[in-house]
Amino acid sequence: MHILLTLAYDGTRYVGWQRQINGISVQQRLEEALAALLGHAVKTTASSRTDAGVHALGQRAAFHTQDMRIPLAKLPRVLNALLPTDISVSHAETVPDGFSPRFAAKYKTYIYHIHNAPVPNPLLRRYNAFIPHPLNRPAMEKAAPYFIGRHDFTSFCAAGGSAKTTVREIYACAVSADADSLALTVTGNGFLYNMVRIIAGTLVYAGLGKISPDSIPHILAAKNRSHAGKTLPPEGLVLAEVSYTALHPAVDFLHQHIHNEVARR
Amino acid sequence: MHILLTLAYDGTRYVGWQRQINGISVQQRLEEALAALLGHAVKTTASSRTDAGVHALGQRAAFHTQDMRIPLAKLPRVLNALLPTDISVSHAETVPDGFSPRFAAKYKTYIYHIHNAPVPNPLLRRYNAFIPHPLNRPAMEKAAPYFIGRHDFTSFCAAGGSAKTTVREIYACAVSADADSLALTVTGNGFLYNMVRIIAGTLVYAGLGKISPDSIPHILAAKNRSHAGKTLPPEGLVLAEVSYTALHPAVDFLHQHIHNEVARR
Repeated sequence: MHILLTLAYDGTRYVGWQRQINGISVQQRLEEALAALLGHAVKTTASSRTDAGVHALGQRAAFHTQDMRIPLAKLPRVLNALLPTDISVSHAETVPDGFSPRFAAKYKTYIYHIHNAPVPNPLLRRYNAFIPHPLNRPAMEKAAPYFIGRHDFTSFCAAGGSAKTTVREIYACAVSADADSLALTVTGNGFLYNMVRIIAGTLVYAGLGKISPDSIPHILAAKNRSHAGKTLPPEGLVLAEVSYTALHPAVDFLHQHIHNEVARR
Repeated sequence: MHILLTLAYDGTRYVGWQRQINGISVQQRLEEALAALLGHAVKTTASSRTDAGVHALGQRAAFHTQDMRIPLAKLPRVLNALLPTDISVSHAETVPDGFSPRFAAKYKTYIYHIHNAPVPNPLLRRYNAFIPHPLNRPAMEKAAPYFIGRHDFTSFCAAGGSAKTTVREIYACAVSADADSLALTVTGNGFLYNMVRIIAGTLVYAGLGKISPDSIPHILAAKNRSHAGKTLPPEGLVLAEVSYTALHPAVDFLHQHIHNEVARR
């Protein structure tokens, strides 16, 4: 049987989702727990290869086994007893053989958290980028929707990725803010290497007045990484959700409407 | 000059506020940073000796020096550059010589955070107690105000404290909850050893149905630690605020009113 897990992790201690020779990965810890439970080596595939230090609330990982004797409803708690406390499985379900958590994904949502205050808050530092300079929130809110739509994201892609195409479609991109924190929520059909962290860094440039909010289309059109902002650090990023259900047509319509509105400005 | 600092810290790595021979304390790290800056040994005194693993957002610590050449407005950033990232100074002000951050405090507020869901969330584990069993929130909300008022808190005090009296006055005690988390906020003129963590554990007992919400007055009257609930773990606790200004008489009146209402039930 083929099983799909939903899992959350604090990425602080890990070299990222994927197994690497230079440190401990989330994948390694999950596969160790599964091997201990099932009595055979297990290979998992995930929806997203999150980078070192990046967190997840709704990562998905699939594996195959013929030795599952535990009811799936009980599998999360059993696995959590075997996993370190910074990794937690919240759900398990069966999927068809050959199901790919990566290629079956219809969309993913990432959230980037920024703590924006004169002095750092030690209780926020693990899950937020800290930016002490005042940020112009309206400028950032104005810039964000320019990313919505189908674009070539070469300007927002770090070297070292392995994607065949640099075109991605963004369905939602918005900044929300309260007194001393900001959150950037980005939903899209896929993401290039460091793409959300570079989008976040470019929105921060808009917030610092280094670029105009209306320059985003030009940065996209340049197809040149040097035109965009800095890559923000990994600790602010969370893979929030991966969905295997297509967006509702009404949502598609709404996104198209936002896209057209932005294009008209 | 005598200087009062406001500071925040993530208590995870520390043996608590106070210097100990068995590990690194927040006090040691702060005094090291001050000594490096001022060129002489510095002794700090704090408003609260938070325990190992307990966090703070509004701890206060005072020290004396005759060598302060940095404007106080810039002192927090200078100190933060010398401190580890899990300790952060947010404010510095002068106070009269001999000012005691502990004895001058009019009230303190602690917040205890509980994550209440079927499976743990790795992103919440550092700053929340995790309780997987469903909690009856109305029962906890009903029990909390019984703590308001002047009481002998012997039943809510761990062995090992050094307080001369076990009588304390609680001005506010309330539980707020959303989908999968609860926060207990307690404001009082002082707290005994582990008092907030035992109050939180006793409210959890009410939430689990192990005790009736109306049994709180009896547990107080028993003056026996064994009648109260378990001591919840340190990671859920935050010293939120220390105030050197007396509560407004209208707030006092409100507290008395709540106390009378509870007494009438």
